[in-house]
Amino acid sequence: RRGEMAKPTQLINNEVFRAFATYAAIVLLKMMLMSLITAYFRLTRKAFVNPEDTASFGKGESAKKFLRTDPDVERARRVHLNDLENIVPFVGIGLLYALSGPELSTALLHFRIFTGARILHTFAYLIPLPQPGRGLSWAVGYAVTFSMAYNVLKTVWLV
Amino acid sequence: RRGEMAKPTQLINNEVFRAFATYAAIVLLKMMLMSLITAYFRLTRKAFVNPEDTASFGKGESAKKFLRTDPDVERARRVHLNDLENIVPFVGIGLLYALSGPELSTALLHFRIFTGARILHTFAYLIPLPQPGRGLSWAVGYAVTFSMAYNVLKTVWLV
Amino acid sequence: RRGEMAKPTQLINNEVFRAFATYAAIVLLKMMLMSLITAYFRLTRKAFVNPEDTASFGKGESAKKFLRTDPDVERARRVHLNDLENIVPFVGIGLLYALSGPELSTALLHFRIFTGARILHTFAYLIPLPQPGRGLSWAVGYAVTFSMAYNVLKTVWLV
Repeated sequence: RRGEMAKPTQLINNEVFRAFATYAAIVLLKMMLMSLITAYFRLTRKAFVNPEDTASFGKGESAKKFLRTDPDVERARRVHLNDLENIVPFVGIGLLYALSGPELSTALLHFRIFTGARILHTFAYLIPLPQPGRGLSWAVGYAVTFSMAYNVLKTVWLV
Repeated sequence: RRGEMAKPTQLINNEVFRAFATYAAIVLLKMMLMSLITAYFRLTRKAFVNPEDTASFGKGESAKKFLRTDPDVERARRVHLNDLENIVPFVGIGLLYALSGPELSTALLHFRIFTGARILHTFAYLIPLPQPGRGLSWAVGYAVTFSMAYNVLKTVWLV
Repeated sequence: RRGEMAKPTQLINNEVFRAFATYAAIVLLKMMLMSLITAYFRLTRKAFVNPEDTASFGKGESAKKFLRTDPDVERARRVHLNDLENIVPFVGIGLLYALSGPELSTALLHFRIFTGARILHTFAYLIPLPQPGRGLSWAVGYAVTFSMAYNVLKTVWLV
């Protein structure tokens, strides 16, 4: 069967992989949402970083005053960066984990807890909730990714 | 056929996957290029952030004056961060999309538009072009990734 | 054999893929470690960015003085961002490379050099070592990722 064309549906028929694809798409969309939230705060707070973005507010000093930082904009940017730091490892390690043959129920548990924790984290950061709300939701997501990485390394270890 | 060794060429024989691999490699290389552009501006504008990077300019105050921010360096860094925020979701969601069995022509359309939009975005940001040049190129790439995510979720949904 | 359920163990039986999964998990864990190092410096240097994080230090001015930047915190954050800029492309391009059917020995060479270079880079950045220690370790990892991207594009090119 050498040279057989890969059926693109092969992997996608696997239930663990389908579950991973679902949750990975959800958390990546959640991360992408931060671009819109940052843009919303930039427009409503009139706080920009690029001179060309303030050109529509007039010329010279009248536009320059909108080149400033705003606490809400900076907060949204920190959520976005925190998502990059945590959701990207989840997607990378989660893909390897999904391919390492875990039980569907165990895999779903990992994916669901991570996704819930990151959605809570976003609310905790943006509202903001008093600590340790944000810290705990961050730690739960971190622990889930770590658990998946441990399972990947236990299964595939080849150095 | 249990226990059959995976042929590493299986997935790579699939045309949609080959197209994805091509465009994913191109946009990731484009993102990596931003490191070189930032380094170029740091060296030509003599604007550094780490004291150990200015040691070759002499000791004490003569070196310290190069620990500063520069508009061109900061602009290149913003392009790089924007690439991380947009190209990374494209690669993650695009991989799931490529494995979800789309038509080759539809998949190529997504990959080509995204890649073109992100290359335009880099030029629009670095030159810089007047708005809405950068905004539109950003939005096109965003919409393509969103469209792929929608198709992935429609195909694989398993929560 | 249409409609055959994908065996989740198929890909994971491939030795190059197992090697990739091992090293990808290691470098992603290394990247995640930066969150803990940044948190450690924030707590020991008492340098925070969110007002809600300083609430336990008291109210008003007594807490406000901990909303500040600290050189060690900023340095750890730069290492983390540099990891995002370099480890994420490695994982994306490395996955495509592992699926493109390279020799195991060649693949292992790429993965090992990259992983070693990034661990050296972290030490060089955090200690910090005099340049060009950090610059060289960065460049080695960059060159490895570039070499894998070249091999991917040579194998899959479909635009």
